[in-house]
Amino acid sequence: MVGADLANLANEAALTAARRNHKQVTMSDFMDALEKEILGTPRGMLLSPAERRRTAYHEAGHALVGMLTPGADPVRKVSIIPRGMTLGVTFAAPDIDRTNFEQSWLKGKIKVALGGRAAEEVVYDTVTSGAESDIQQLTEIARHMVGRWGMSPVIGPIAVLPSESAGPMLPGVSETSETTQRLVDEEVRRIVDESYQKAKQLLIDNRDKLDSLTEALIEQETLDEDAAYAAADVVRDPSPSKSEENPTGPDNPDN
Amino acid sequence: MVGADLANLANEAALTAARRNHKQVTMSDFMDALEKEILGTPRGMLLSPAERRRTAYHEAGHALVGMLTPGADPVRKVSIIPRGMTLGVTFAAPDIDRTNFEQSWLKGKIKVALGGRAAEEVVYDTVTSGAESDIQQLTEIARHMVGRWGMSPVIGPIAVLPSESAGPMLPGVSETSETTQRLVDEEVRRIVDESYQKAKQLLIDNRDKLDSLTEALIEQETLDEDAAYAAADVVRDPSPSKSEENPTGPDNPDN
Amino acid sequence: MVGADLANLANEAALTAARRNHKQVTMSDFMDALEKEILGTPRGMLLSPAERRRTAYHEAGHALVGMLTPGADPVRKVSIIPRGMTLGVTFAAPDIDRTNFEQSWLKGKIKVALGGRAAEEVVYDTVTSGAESDIQQLTEIARHMVGRWGMSPVIGPIAVLPSESAGPMLPGVSETSETTQRLVDEEVRRIVDESYQKAKQLLIDNRDKLDSLTEALIEQETLDEDAAYAAADVVRDPSPSKSEENPTGPDNPDN
Amino acid sequence: MVGADLANLANEAALTAARRNHKQVTMSDFMDALEKEILGTPRGMLLSPAERRRTAYHEAGHALVGMLTPGADPVRKVSIIPRGMTLGVTFAAPDIDRTNFEQSWLKGKIKVALGGRAAEEVVYDTVTSGAESDIQQLTEIARHMVGRWGMSPVIGPIAVLPSESAGPMLPGVSETSETTQRLVDEEVRRIVDESYQKAKQLLIDNRDKLDSLTEALIEQETLDEDAAYAAADVVRDPSPSKSEENPTGPDNPDN
Amino acid sequence: MVGADLANLANEAALTAARRNHKQVTMSDFMDALEKEILGTPRGMLLSPAERRRTAYHEAGHALVGMLTPGADPVRKVSIIPRGMTLGVTFAAPDIDRTNFEQSWLKGKIKVALGGRAAEEVVYDTVTSGAESDIQQLTEIARHMVGRWGMSPVIGPIAVLPSESAGPMLPGVSETSETTQRLVDEEVRRIVDESYQKAKQLLIDNRDKLDSLTEALIEQETLDEDAAYAAADVVRDPSPSKSEENPTGPDNPDN
Amino acid sequence: MVGADLANLANEAALTAARRNHKQVTMSDFMDALEKEILGTPRGMLLSPAERRRTAYHEAGHALVGMLTPGADPVRKVSIIPRGMTLGVTFAAPDIDRTNFEQSWLKGKIKVALGGRAAEEVVYDTVTSGAESDIQQLTEIARHMVGRWGMSPVIGPIAVLPSESAGPMLPGVSETSETTQRLVDEEVRRIVDESYQKAKQLLIDNRDKLDSLTEALIEQETLDEDAAYAAADVVRDPSPSKSEENPTGPDNPDN
Repeated sequence: MVGADLANLANEAALTAARRNHKQVTMSDFMDALEKEILGTPRGMLLSPAERRRTAYHEAGHALVGMLTPGADPVRKVSIIPRGMTLGVTFAAPDIDRTNFEQSWLKGKIKVALGGRAAEEVVYDTVTSGAESDIQQLTEIARHMVGRWGMSPVIGPIAVLPSESAGPMLPGVSETSETTQRLVDEEVRRIVDESYQKAKQLLIDNRDKLDSLTEALIEQETLDEDAAYAAADVVRDPSPSKSEENPTGPDNPDN
Repeated sequence: MVGADLANLANEAALTAARRNHKQVTMSDFMDALEKEILGTPRGMLLSPAERRRTAYHEAGHALVGMLTPGADPVRKVSIIPRGMTLGVTFAAPDIDRTNFEQSWLKGKIKVALGGRAAEEVVYDTVTSGAESDIQQLTEIARHMVGRWGMSPVIGPIAVLPSESAGPMLPGVSETSETTQRLVDEEVRRIVDESYQKAKQLLIDNRDKLDSLTEALIEQETLDEDAAYAAADVVRDPSPSKSEENPTGPDNPDN
Repeated sequence: MVGADLANLANEAALTAARRNHKQVTMSDFMDALEKEILGTPRGMLLSPAERRRTAYHEAGHALVGMLTPGADPVRKVSIIPRGMTLGVTFAAPDIDRTNFEQSWLKGKIKVALGGRAAEEVVYDTVTSGAESDIQQLTEIARHMVGRWGMSPVIGPIAVLPSESAGPMLPGVSETSETTQRLVDEEVRRIVDESYQKAKQLLIDNRDKLDSLTEALIEQETLDEDAAYAAADVVRDPSPSKSEENPTGPDNPDN
Repeated sequence: MVGADLANLANEAALTAARRNHKQVTMSDFMDALEKEILGTPRGMLLSPAERRRTAYHEAGHALVGMLTPGADPVRKVSIIPRGMTLGVTFAAPDIDRTNFEQSWLKGKIKVALGGRAAEEVVYDTVTSGAESDIQQLTEIARHMVGRWGMSPVIGPIAVLPSESAGPMLPGVSETSETTQRLVDEEVRRIVDESYQKAKQLLIDNRDKLDSLTEALIEQETLDEDAAYAAADVVRDPSPSKSEENPTGPDNPDN
Repeated sequence: MVGADLANLANEAALTAARRNHKQVTMSDFMDALEKEILGTPRGMLLSPAERRRTAYHEAGHALVGMLTPGADPVRKVSIIPRGMTLGVTFAAPDIDRTNFEQSWLKGKIKVALGGRAAEEVVYDTVTSGAESDIQQLTEIARHMVGRWGMSPVIGPIAVLPSESAGPMLPGVSETSETTQRLVDEEVRRIVDESYQKAKQLLIDNRDKLDSLTEALIEQETLDEDAAYAAADVVRDPSPSKSEENPTGPDNPDN
Repeated sequence: MVGADLANLANEAALTAARRNHKQVTMSDFMDALEKEILGTPRGMLLSPAERRRTAYHEAGHALVGMLTPGADPVRKVSIIPRGMTLGVTFAAPDIDRTNFEQSWLKGKIKVALGGRAAEEVVYDTVTSGAESDIQQLTEIARHMVGRWGMSPVIGPIAVLPSESAGPMLPGVSETSETTQRLVDEEVRRIVDESYQKAKQLLIDNRDKLDSLTEALIEQETLDEDAAYAAADVVRDPSPSKSEENPTGPDNPDN
């Protein structure tokens, strides 16, 4: 976001507050303005009840996996109001900005991204094209883990994928061998598969929470942080960064 | 379609209605306008009787597979009037717009696209180049299922094909290994082969319906929804989205 | 051909007719004009008698394979007058324009394109570079059959070659695996080899017709449809599109 | 650095000295100016205590491996003040400029670059994305050793990677075979793996020094050369270029 | 050659004739003008006697293989006057222009191109970089034979190499598989190897002719057609195109 | 070098002569001018004694291998004055310009290029990045020998590498198969390895000459032809082109 975007955002937040007769811009005015800025104005689109329910299960899947994964960023908002190209959205954000990503946190992020699709598979035993952007996002994270951040024991601490800054002016100048590209593909697959099995099991083991969060979404369309945790009957972890405080503890092998 | 296109379309529909002395624009005025807008004005082209019959079988093949596939979009119109580059056309559209594609619906769409070629093979035991655009369309669907939408168990929920938005400025920057590309090709082949066997069997099992729909097309050139279902002696499924209402039911394994 | 070309062509046909003191533009005036437009003015080039004879055998080979292949387009003209880059030419065209190509007709077209080279091999037991454009044309047909029109059982009804409309702006963005490219190459090879064996056998079995057509060409330089069929002693098939009339008949396995 | 950069740098050093009421530009004024020029102004960013501690261990890892590797450039400064995109920095520089890099010195440089990540793994048993630029840098060194400087016995004294001066105008013109690219990848992997094992073992064997250097960094944010060596309780090697004086001595196999 | 080149050439021939006090432009004036136009003005370069002798053997090798290969174009001129980038030149041209290349003639051309290098190997048992342009030329012929002209039984009458007219705007769009490219390489290798063995054996068997032609070249620097055949003691084949007259004769298997 | 460069060079040589109060431009004025033109003005750079000694051994290695290789170009000058990007330089040039490179001479050139690195390995048992430009140069020679000049029995007299004149406008249009590229890589490796073993053995066997040449370089910084041969105690081969005079002698297998 550059300066002009921030100015627009502040303006939009002020207008939202004004429309709601708030004397001050509240956090919820600001987040609604941000949502509108990023996702566009709500579309007056008519989903069939079946599609609306499916969307609710998808978003609830993201949200619940996020709530139940230790160390993952807290869920701030879940919504099934169609906007722009999306049918729903789940926001998660840390208490303070992260500048450095721990391996376990990245695996958690992949698990959360898979939560929507996992919920659809658990509930409907079928999947839809709606997970495309989730899949794109988690693939990028997994490829970075393996090919840029040294997080695969098979590849080691070596940069085998071109960095983004290499730019589009060097087409095809891959110096990496086909064998290495295959190993990267296999490692990405392994990381994503492990995360998917965990996400799915988590939702199977917590089907009641998934159903109740989904019902709340269908009824209220949008849930803020407190409402979402309450609807899912999940107690928010009071010390999200606890594991980082203990430098000698091993990485939680269960993530 | 952008605004200007819609304005043209509305205009064309009004002119069509006027030419037919309709007081109001009817649905059929609108669909004929849409057809003309997309496919071009009918060509005064002379097909040989043999070519005309073959075209009719091809379109009837698309239409009948669509009519007999549960959950597929209803067939709205079938026509063998040559327009632009096409010899005939089959329109299918859902009752409400879809924004999210279920795996079984996508397989149905591939099956319908293969219906024209399957009919030619069932009836003539030979195929023609006329299925080129069908083949292109169904290949794109199958490749998206495998490479972008996570619908192949062999590839998993991973994006292995470049998204369209990557743009033409990054030629050759495929980060995916040859091994993965081969797996994608094999999975696409498997999906298409399974669909083709089903489409062909469906037409063999319903050869009488295929013949009667073809005869009706040869006689009347264009059939609207009701006429097409009647000519094929198929009762339109009253609840096309029923399967989506039942969230716990498994995906129909027969699709 | 765009409008301006057609205007030129009409003009040229009129001039040709005028030069010949015809009161009306005849079909032969028109075809000569078309030939001149496409191939250029005859070159006053001196071929050695040996080269002239070889060219005659080459063109007679194309023509005879065309005449003896059921369902192939009738031969309209054969000529060994050098024009532009070519030493000779064989024209074949259907009675009405085709918009859809049957598999057997495409195989016939490949066989005809191989006829020139096959004749050279049958007569001289050696081949020349003169078949380059024939080879280019038949390779394109065979690659389209395999890679765009679903006519290879090994590849199936899947688009594995980029369509021409993809344009030159996407260099190297082949999404197809090396394995698939190899299969395409093998299938193209199989189709062409089968066609070549048939074309060669046809010419061996009809060596007398090949010789008499060649002698006629050497004597008269240009033969129109009737003269060509007469010189080869071939009776033109009266119902070239008969096989298409019989929708239940199988594809002639001998093509 | 071109002339204009040097002028800027001299100016910045003079301003820094002025702000500090120094009568002359001291070495520390100059180095702070250089740091600001390269890394940007310190960001008033708030790290969590856990993140700050992790950053301190990361930088201490780089520094300690540098201090304990014979022949490596002396550590000049260590800092955990966030600037631009970085959370911390470790500066190392030789007493006189190097123009020629010995193989053992290059391996030492790779080991130092891995020191940050190795420290994180030793202390937290997990790694973070923060090592991305370290990984990029050491991969480049290792690839140059193997592919440009003839330092791999498997590849030999042959240039198998394009030189930078080849420029971006020759995309894809790799003349090197896939087999050679695989060998390069394997050799790079071997070099980096060996260095990583050594860096990790060094930190395990000197955990007390790592902890004391880290604590000093957390307390003081920035340590200059003397303070850093003192905090780590390491005596700076008085003759860093000693090994080069002895032309008959073998390359230290332990590096 | 375009018009302007031809005008220059005619001019140069006239000037040459004038300088020699010829009343008319003779064939030798014309050929010297052509030589100057193509190769540049003779360089006043001083070759060592050894280099001059080696060059003479190289050109004599080309010329003698040409003289002794049935059906090859007659040798018109041999010269060891250094011009532009070349140390010597051998001209061969048919009696009438060829527009179509027989396979045996193409193999002969490859053999002649290899004659220079073969002579160096026969006489000096070593080779030089001077054959680079010969090698480039014969590789192009062999690749066209295999990949564009259908002259390899392994590849068949299929176009597997891009035609030149495809243009530089489609980089990397090779549709041909690696397997096919390997087969092309192997066939090119086979053709060239067979030709090289024949060229070398021809020179070994005719070492006396090679030596006498070389001595004549060293003495006279330039030999025209008659002088060259005389120096080599070869009787020029009176009917170079005889084999083409006999359409039933098999291709000479010895070429 | 184009005309303008030559004019500059002549000017510089005149100025050098003037500065030295020479009445005429001597060969040494000219060579110093050439050196300055190509390598730049001497840098007032301070090398450590160790680095200076290493550089001397490196240059002495090049020079000594050149002196001891029969048929190699005589060494004209050796210098360890840092200029531009180089720490030292060894000049070798033939008595008359070569326009054609014999295989044995090319192998000698590769051996000389490896001499610097071989000396470092013999003396220090380690290598440095300083050989990068040597490695680049010898790789280019070896690749040309194998891929353009037909000097590898495995590849044969076939052009398998793109010529430089193909230009940068055809990226990726490699028509050569991966298998051939691998064979080229293996042949290049074989040629370089053989040369390296010979260069190294030559220096081991003549360590005393290497040491005395090195010491002379350290003392005098620059040695001209006579001083260099004297310091190394090598008698310059009086007939460097003798082997070329004997056309029936085999290529020295020891090169």
